[in-house]
Amino acid sequence: MNLNECIQQFLPEIENNLKQVIEKSVAEEDLELHAMIFHHMGWEGEGAGQEAQGKRIRPLLTLLAATAAGGDWKKALPAAVSVELVHNFSLIHDDIQDCSETRRGRPTVWVKWGVAQAINTGDLMFTLAFYALQALLRDHVPAVVVEASRILQRACIDLTRGQYLDLTYEGRQDVRVEGYWPMVGGKTAALLSSAVELGALCAATTPENRGDFREYGYSLGLAFQCWDDWLGIWGDSAVTGKSVASDLLAGKKTLPVLYALNNSASFRERWIQGSIQPEEIPGISQMLIQLGAKEFTEQEATRLTSRALTELDLAVADGKTRQALQELTHKLLERKN
Amino acid sequence: MNLNECIQQFLPEIENNLKQVIEKSVAEEDLELHAMIFHHMGWEGEGAGQEAQGKRIRPLLTLLAATAAGGDWKKALPAAVSVELVHNFSLIHDDIQDCSETRRGRPTVWVKWGVAQAINTGDLMFTLAFYALQALLRDHVPAVVVEASRILQRACIDLTRGQYLDLTYEGRQDVRVEGYWPMVGGKTAALLSSAVELGALCAATTPENRGDFREYGYSLGLAFQCWDDWLGIWGDSAVTGKSVASDLLAGKKTLPVLYALNNSASFRERWIQGSIQPEEIPGISQMLIQLGAKEFTEQEATRLTSRALTELDLAVADGKTRQALQELTHKLLERKN
Repeated sequence: MNLNECIQQFLPEIENNLKQVIEKSVAEEDLELHAMIFHHMGWEGEGAGQEAQGKRIRPLLTLLAATAAGGDWKKALPAAVSVELVHNFSLIHDDIQDCSETRRGRPTVWVKWGVAQAINTGDLMFTLAFYALQALLRDHVPAVVVEASRILQRACIDLTRGQYLDLTYEGRQDVRVEGYWPMVGGKTAALLSSAVELGALCAATTPENRGDFREYGYSLGLAFQCWDDWLGIWGDSAVTGKSVASDLLAGKKTLPVLYALNNSASFRERWIQGSIQPEEIPGISQMLIQLGAKEFTEQEATRLTSRALTELDLAVADGKTRQALQELTHKLLERKN
Repeated sequence: MNLNECIQQFLPEIENNLKQVIEKSVAEEDLELHAMIFHHMGWEGEGAGQEAQGKRIRPLLTLLAATAAGGDWKKALPAAVSVELVHNFSLIHDDIQDCSETRRGRPTVWVKWGVAQAINTGDLMFTLAFYALQALLRDHVPAVVVEASRILQRACIDLTRGQYLDLTYEGRQDVRVEGYWPMVGGKTAALLSSAVELGALCAATTPENRGDFREYGYSLGLAFQCWDDWLGIWGDSAVTGKSVASDLLAGKKTLPVLYALNNSASFRERWIQGSIQPEEIPGISQMLIQLGAKEFTEQEATRLTSRALTELDLAVADGKTRQALQELTHKLLERKN
């Protein structure tokens, strides 16, 4: 199967399985709880639909990796669902932490239902992420389920440590570009890496080969985040569904910003003075381009994508699924949202 | 061993194992992250010490249940640690949701480090709770670890559903006393029940016997919460470490309040008018007593404690550890904080 065929086959199964896990634990009579999750997942409410559901990149990676490692993708579905639930739990909490009012062009859960309910709904989805792994017992021995839990738990520990760094960096002006990597390694790469590794685990490949898959997922995750940072400033807000340059307004220590802070005294001076105002965005964006921050970010994204592709070659012998993973890897770097 | 001997032997091991799990994943160099957890757990910062650590009732129950079910309590330590971490994660998030500024007489995490970091630290502790179960592999086959995970996950699903009800009830005036039980069943009893059941699981007792332990833990949890509600209004704030009648000021639908709302039009009228002010507390407290809400709460706590003791008799044959569990059950209903 090529990438498009994979996506067409996998996506409906991912959505079905996600819904099943949630509906098994959250009854329709838990009215608002059900509504919050279904709104956040893009299944219900104004603007619901594929756009609102996000790209489901992580579960797709799990199923592609399972196939590439010689397994049956259906046996990896519970792991794919888990990873997507972790991702979505973290988005609900991120939106509170960043005071983000929209997500994929729609109001965030805390905006619609308040901070207290949003924290709790995130907690429930986090639990469901782990609970979803129980369904692996259908096709795997308990030792595989325990190992899958361990992989996901390690990713979540890294995720929260990365988020801690991100929040800490907000108030610091002395962060180096080197400090970027442990932050996004935790925040983004750890979960993408676990998505890929879980697929390989479900295909019962060797631990060494699983390690190769894990490395590929990690580099892919770093490349993905670099590009996300690029889109956060230079992306088309109509396509990304975020407000224009929201990362700049929020004072996020993204890669282009860290590059500029490390390389330009005048940028640093402006940054220290306080929040960037909406009317300054065009000027700041231009300044970042002139300082080479845009180009640097593009170079880093390209470098990490190449690394990911090399690691992918190590992990998987040539074949249709490797081509599909290569195609996905390229696509993530060319994406517009 | 009698209860005191058990506590003296178990408590230091619980603290050690809690610290080990946390320090394995959170290095000293994660300065503030480490500080937030160590502050919350009562190990560091102003006012640290046994008072600040809380009673560790849940892990004690796990180890007592393991012993009572004929097992080696040391083999249940990872499960005991998990349950206490879940409890503490939920406290960190609860304090944000309730805007509680103090906990056990000390500032809460969100007050000291802000809401964003507090949410994230709670998330990390939640992950660590599940991760801690991995250590069960030392003494148990993987199938036991998977079952332990399932028990804890079901408890966390119930916990968040209970919390959802609690938050929803805040804005509703039509909640019946009957609506109280699913709320506290989720918020409190589910985790206490899982604490007891996990102990029995680690002792490799039969599934039927495990069910008896679970029932005991559930009734104990309901009784515990009734009494907590009582303390929240009539407890001595110097002993509980909470502000005086904070539950009344926060407009919580505790058992005495629900009873009064269901049975007195004048109480209902006052309640609907808006938040109770500090100067009204003595009057409202007196009104609740006159309406019989205090007595009703005491009766319910006593009824549920008896039920718990009957269920305990079913779960455990007579012996020293049953006596210790009986003693603990009584103590929880006589506690002052």
